Amino acid sequence: MTLTHDGPEPRRTSRRGFLGGALGTAGVLAAGGAGFGVARATEPAADGRVGDVVPFYGLHQAGIATPAQDRLAFAAFTVTATEADQVAQLLGTWAAAAAQLSKGLPVGAVDNSPLAPPIDTGEAVGLGAANLTITVGFGPSLFDDRFGLQGKRPAALADLPALPGDTLDPNRTGGDLCVQACSDDPTVAFHVIRNFARLARGTAVMKWSQLGFGRTSSTSDKQQTERNLLGFKDGTNNIKDESTADFDDYVWVGAESDQGWMRGGSYLVARRIRMLIESWDIDYLADQENVIGRFKTSGAPLTGKNEFDTVDLQATKKGGQPVIPIDAHIRLASPETNAGQKILRRGYSYTDGIDPETGLLDAGLFFICFQKDPRKQFVPIQRKLGSHDALNEYIRHTGSGLFAVPPAPKAAGDWWGKELFQ
Amino acid sequence: MTLTHDGPEPRRTSRRGFLGGALGTAGVLAAGGAGFGVARATEPAADGRVGDVVPFYGLHQAGIATPAQDRLAFAAFTVTATEADQVAQLLGTWAAAAAQLSKGLPVGAVDNSPLAPPIDTGEAVGLGAANLTITVGFGPSLFDDRFGLQGKRPAALADLPALPGDTLDPNRTGGDLCVQACSDDPTVAFHVIRNFARLARGTAVMKWSQLGFGRTSSTSDKQQTERNLLGFKDGTNNIKDESTADFDDYVWVGAESDQGWMRGGSYLVARRIRMLIESWDIDYLADQENVIGRFKTSGAPLTGKNEFDTVDLQATKKGGQPVIPIDAHIRLASPETNAGQKILRRGYSYTDGIDPETGLLDAGLFFICFQKDPRKQFVPIQRKLGSHDALNEYIRHTGSGLFAVPPAPKAAGDWWGKELFQ
Repeated sequence: MTLTHDGPEPRRTSRRGFLGGALGTAGVLAAGGAGFGVARATEPAADGRVGDVVPFYGLHQAGIATPAQDRLAFAAFTVTATEADQVAQLLGTWAAAAAQLSKGLPVGAVDNSPLAPPIDTGEAVGLGAANLTITVGFGPSLFDDRFGLQGKRPAALADLPALPGDTLDPNRTGGDLCVQACSDDPTVAFHVIRNFARLARGTAVMKWSQLGFGRTSSTSDKQQTERNLLGFKDGTNNIKDESTADFDDYVWVGAESDQGWMRGGSYLVARRIRMLIESWDIDYLADQENVIGRFKTSGAPLTGKNEFDTVDLQATKKGGQPVIPIDAHIRLASPETNAGQKILRRGYSYTDGIDPETGLLDAGLFFICFQKDPRKQFVPIQRKLGSHDALNEYIRHTGSGLFAVPPAPKAAGDWWGKELFQ
Repeated sequence: MTLTHDGPEPRRTSRRGFLGGALGTAGVLAAGGAGFGVARATEPAADGRVGDVVPFYGLHQAGIATPAQDRLAFAAFTVTATEADQVAQLLGTWAAAAAQLSKGLPVGAVDNSPLAPPIDTGEAVGLGAANLTITVGFGPSLFDDRFGLQGKRPAALADLPALPGDTLDPNRTGGDLCVQACSDDPTVAFHVIRNFARLARGTAVMKWSQLGFGRTSSTSDKQQTERNLLGFKDGTNNIKDESTADFDDYVWVGAESDQGWMRGGSYLVARRIRMLIESWDIDYLADQENVIGRFKTSGAPLTGKNEFDTVDLQATKKGGQPVIPIDAHIRLASPETNAGQKILRRGYSYTDGIDPETGLLDAGLFFICFQKDPRKQFVPIQRKLGSHDALNEYIRHTGSGLFAVPPAPKAAGDWWGKELFQ
């Protein structure tokens, strides 16, 4: 861990100090000792806003089979360090911080010493955990020739191919590492990204980030289905947290993986899907419903009356045309059209203000999905959608990321992908 | 109202149809008749998320003396129409829409007709009002020579002068009209801006917008003081909604105004204040506390122990230096230093991703304040802060707006500043 000496009496620590669970703020201050890294919660929340706590340590990372929280802060990082050991140290530091944050605690004391910078930036003090989950992934580029990890790259982490209709902005695409922070409080989620960027100083820099203001996918039978910015319910037939079988079949990496370190993990694909809402908004209701394949108000498939009625892709009208059009989004995205494949969707609505080129709102869906193998799931599904989906007239994929999400750290001192670095 | 004829059978309406409370979606479809504009709530919220409803009609506009909600969507518009009548029609249409939205209803039916675009964009259906308030203001530029309003410009709506330390981006500054949408649900707030932009088509275009993800100012004795992205509690000594006297003295325009149409209104100043959080985060705790004049964890003034203890600007240390430094933010911003003046603050934390020039997070405070006369309140206070505030090392004002906020529409058929156009 790099130490700078701008301040009075920076405390030195062993380079491996974080392994004991202690925390360092890279480039600023490092703190050693087993007890020090356990932050105090400097202020209990007084107004009942303290939410539930989702366990950080375990088998699978939190933030996948966790009921989707309301708000998202997502960031991709580029590693600037040149040694694998530095990457490992960053991941260890992040994991120790994540364990604290997931409990609603700061990464370290805000008021440790008047003559040192606060270890935590402080803005989330008093807000509790609000169901915070922190999910970390590794991009394909982490396995290039910089860190000697070439031989450990899973086959399933194949670069995403160019897909039909891609209009990707390189400044919103890729990354060596990703951090998905989800919480029911947006300040709690933002606080993670900010502090992770701070802890990364000298080792990694943020490449891009995305705030999601509203959950669009329900991932639990207990959640109401939300609407995306097209005004339609999204994720009615999503994989639900209650379905262990679906997770085993479609989400969690199993014995089939060529890389043992990924078993129990998953693959995250993120797509920043801008919606051309001004065009969408002048389309007729019936056309919108044909584009999606569902009724707008009820969310029912065009072959049903209620949201959860069966999607009948075979049903035809009098003239023999299918009730759910041949190019309807739900037809092309359905498991029946995709060799039975499913993905777990966990997306959020976003807006990033005005597009300076057009004066129109830059808004849409920050799509996130998890799966066992993107080569068999996201890629073929999106290839089909990108070629034929009637929705293509109204959307543009403007950013993209693919990340291997290893299993969760097991206990204090462990971190994501530790086996990779040993 | 401009009608286009892209669609089948657009319904024509009288140009004054909106006066009866009916709604039109400018440039697309206009709907007349007294009953039509009253939208149906197409789906009651099933999960208890429906928040309280803040009345839209009344004396003062909602969103000023309303307990600050958690989320903000703000937009400034440029009028592209050339006739005052068109501006009046837009304001009438917006007011009718705002009355609906404030009740948690769509601006018009989502499923009015399969052969017409939905009148409401639909994404907020089922979310309720969540304490939504919609506050509309007029920028100085609305009173230029385009609409014959020059003689009705209030003296207090004087252009903001250049202020010390300004680094304003013209693409985040100014505007003929502004819309402040606050709600406890960010989708509800965004939905307002999106639909207002849609209703404005052909009359006005969005100039800039800003999402605020977390409330930073408490405006009610019932609210906990929140922390801004500096990690400090913000707004401890703010004007509180419970203090009618403070509102009369500092916020509401009274008989002193040279323009009768502004009585009962207020003036909104918005400042996009970027925080250089990477620099701030390496500053020592004691220095941060001296910059602000408060303790970070407790929020107490440096002369006290608890958050709400009196700020004693006279207190000195042994050597005679003031306990609260001469350039501390709370000293320079305090009423005692500013001829007794106060402002009502109603700001939100924002982040807009990565600054492409530096690779650092573009994040900070979208500061909003309300006052009786910016010439006596915001301008002299900010002149002092901009010149001397120790905080200047860590912040940049990157956007700015000034708007006259007239009193509220009184009832259906009324709109903001109606007197101006008659």
